[in-house]
Amino acid sequence: MSVGLDYLLNPRSVAIIGATAREGSVGGVITRNLLTKFRGRIYLVNPSYNELLGHRVYRSVLEIPDEVDLAVIVTPAPTVPKVMSECVAKGVRVAVIISGGFSEVGEDGTRLEREVKEVAQGRVRILGPNCIGIYNAFNGLDTFFIPQVRMERPRPGPIALISQSGAVAAAILDWAARRSIGVGLAVNYGNKLDISEVELLGALASNENVRVIVIYIEGLKYADEGRKLLEVMRQVTRIKPIVVYKAGRSKSSSRAVKSHTAALAGNYEIYRAMLRQAGAIEVNNLMDALEVAKALATQPLPRGNRVLVITDSGGAGVQAVDNVETVGLVVPELPQDLRNTLAKSLPPFASTANPIDLTGSATDAMYKFVLDTVLPTDHIDMVLILAQMQLPGMTPKLADYIIEVRRFGKPIVVYGISANEEARTFKARLEEGGVPTYDRLETAANALRALYEYAVIRGLARPH
Amino acid sequence: MSVGLDYLLNPRSVAIIGATAREGSVGGVITRNLLTKFRGRIYLVNPSYNELLGHRVYRSVLEIPDEVDLAVIVTPAPTVPKVMSECVAKGVRVAVIISGGFSEVGEDGTRLEREVKEVAQGRVRILGPNCIGIYNAFNGLDTFFIPQVRMERPRPGPIALISQSGAVAAAILDWAARRSIGVGLAVNYGNKLDISEVELLGALASNENVRVIVIYIEGLKYADEGRKLLEVMRQVTRIKPIVVYKAGRSKSSSRAVKSHTAALAGNYEIYRAMLRQAGAIEVNNLMDALEVAKALATQPLPRGNRVLVITDSGGAGVQAVDNVETVGLVVPELPQDLRNTLAKSLPPFASTANPIDLTGSATDAMYKFVLDTVLPTDHIDMVLILAQMQLPGMTPKLADYIIEVRRFGKPIVVYGISANEEARTFKARLEEGGVPTYDRLETAANALRALYEYAVIRGLARPH
Repeated sequence: MSVGLDYLLNPRSVAIIGATAREGSVGGVITRNLLTKFRGRIYLVNPSYNELLGHRVYRSVLEIPDEVDLAVIVTPAPTVPKVMSECVAKGVRVAVIISGGFSEVGEDGTRLEREVKEVAQGRVRILGPNCIGIYNAFNGLDTFFIPQVRMERPRPGPIALISQSGAVAAAILDWAARRSIGVGLAVNYGNKLDISEVELLGALASNENVRVIVIYIEGLKYADEGRKLLEVMRQVTRIKPIVVYKAGRSKSSSRAVKSHTAALAGNYEIYRAMLRQAGAIEVNNLMDALEVAKALATQPLPRGNRVLVITDSGGAGVQAVDNVETVGLVVPELPQDLRNTLAKSLPPFASTANPIDLTGSATDAMYKFVLDTVLPTDHIDMVLILAQMQLPGMTPKLADYIIEVRRFGKPIVVYGISANEEARTFKARLEEGGVPTYDRLETAANALRALYEYAVIRGLARPH
Repeated sequence: MSVGLDYLLNPRSVAIIGATAREGSVGGVITRNLLTKFRGRIYLVNPSYNELLGHRVYRSVLEIPDEVDLAVIVTPAPTVPKVMSECVAKGVRVAVIISGGFSEVGEDGTRLEREVKEVAQGRVRILGPNCIGIYNAFNGLDTFFIPQVRMERPRPGPIALISQSGAVAAAILDWAARRSIGVGLAVNYGNKLDISEVELLGALASNENVRVIVIYIEGLKYADEGRKLLEVMRQVTRIKPIVVYKAGRSKSSSRAVKSHTAALAGNYEIYRAMLRQAGAIEVNNLMDALEVAKALATQPLPRGNRVLVITDSGGAGVQAVDNVETVGLVVPELPQDLRNTLAKSLPPFASTANPIDLTGSATDAMYKFVLDTVLPTDHIDMVLILAQMQLPGMTPKLADYIIEVRRFGKPIVVYGISANEEARTFKARLEEGGVPTYDRLETAANALRALYEYAVIRGLARPH
């Protein structure tokens, strides 16, 4: 792991430089968040106060009678060089500079940014400036400066996010929280004065809380960054899956990227080819990135691309097949002997070819029977279960059967559009039991595709 | 309008044949639903009871001392020919046969179905059999036999749905209700013994409550149906937009279609070409169909394909451009003089090229200024507004500004991923004020694309 990155993810002690109790201000939100949530030692620094919210306030980081692993800096840009020199003197390991007013505002800011870098001398590693920083659900380290009422925080979980945009990270974490998707770690690096996505990727790869890494990227600033990033990606994808959403794909959006992050969006087709070569899984938006990551974090990898579809609605079954085949997977007709076995115990109106359509008369027991019968055979590699809790024969108990058949070692994802009380219970049980659920067939299909793609990358399945 | 169809949509009196109070049964759900919701005269028919739920029960439809416009039949399949002969004698105009056990179960059922048709002699028009029937939010006519706790009903609104699958219709109506999308009318025609999608399309086209028609179709049964359907579509699209989701696109899903609705899915590429020729707007799933319909029902048609994007998050702006351009629309750079006008009144960090990025310092007033300045010019045809209620300068009051600029006669759609309280208020106000909101950029882009496509179909915009 790169020097200092461990202190960024797991500091024992944090100093907030520019701490304040002012409601709604950047410093105020961070101060309150860290005081209430961070599971470590916390020190407030601000020369204007002796005490804040019942906590002692130090005039400078130098006064703190303890080692400081991480400094969160929220003071105005012009003060940051001096603050940084104190951090160097104190032996602070990493500084997250939240403050804006650096290279993103023009030449004066660029000079200031250079000055901060010179002062730090590489002895204090820097995340930012002009960033939203870090969110770590495992230890409560949260520099995201949007109050909880405006942005919910996701529960601890195996997905980590690296985002080139702070606002995009905040918006998607809020979304993930409301969907109960466990994004345990998220980092935004702002102007990237020191710590880059390349180093972050390396650090997250060796972090044991992280099983899947999601990257949001708009573009790169320097020519050799792309090469470095892909090199690290190639190494990381041998251990953990990386899901990438690359924005800035067209000429007009490249213009927007330039104005947003001062980066070069580059030729999207070249990006695509490079990402593929590096073994990254590409998606078309961040919601799908997290949904797909959910499957990668919980499911075994398939040995092939053949999908079994079980449904209680013929129409939804048809749509499922469309979606699964659109992403390049197949829904093979089951062999006659297996169909006969199924037909013997299923009602005559059920269709057994694949999709298995149990119709509106479906019951939990029929699903269980189909899963127990087909999953152990070598005719299919993955399962997409469509189950609607609108039907009289269906109950949330089906979740337990589904969790049980995980023992066959094949990936399972569940689709259901219904949101009534039983459907919510059903889905919650599945998610707790390690089975991802989706309310869009397209997303469910993308999740299966990602599992297959990663299996191919890891050499566990043949490319089709 | 075809004979009888008006009685299906707007009956003055309804008889439920096979009425029952049995909880959870098909007849029980329909009986309770109609008794509590239908705004018209309602008669219960069942020879086994004299009274049900405090209402008189007639032994046969013939005993009812009133005209009966519509009969809802839920009795077992073998009894339906007799029931139908009584309906004919009574002069019932339309019968919705909910009961299954007809051609979908094999030869015996097919014979029974033919018998019912012969008895009806075309004097009683028939919807079904083996269908979920009709949902009409305007008059409370609701034969969907899933209880409210398992399936919510959407509010009255300008979207009508024709669905080849009853289960699919039920699932999507529940989804629409939870999203507060106004699907005022929905019809499923089951085995299509008499009334077909062709006739339904004609009836909905001339129904004044309906502004957009959404069709879910898996396939057609007979060779000449396609020709008829497209002929009617071509006529209807001159008056109202039709949004179609055609499922059963691949070889495997065609197999599934055959087993589900006994229809032929046909070659999807041929379907696509035919739908395009008929002026229908095609989408890839039913959620998008309804989301797109929301825009078609409320927005004026654009004169071209140029989209203005306004955002408070540079990253979201980049993604918006990607999505808008992916569907074939353009995000043109604004001319320098207009950019100068914008720059004079916006903060220096705002970007004015298009997307207009107001950054995290955005306020309602900045949005208002941009809209008032750019909308009246002839540089853009439509607007996609990205607004996050996570930012301190943003309030739900922005909704009023947006509703106000509808006066410029250009389509506006709003995207926001946030779901905090202010965001919910913001979106609810917009929807009430006739501005569609979306929580996926892809869907927002599809909505704009559909508006442009329909403008081209109606000859109001040039194809690009």
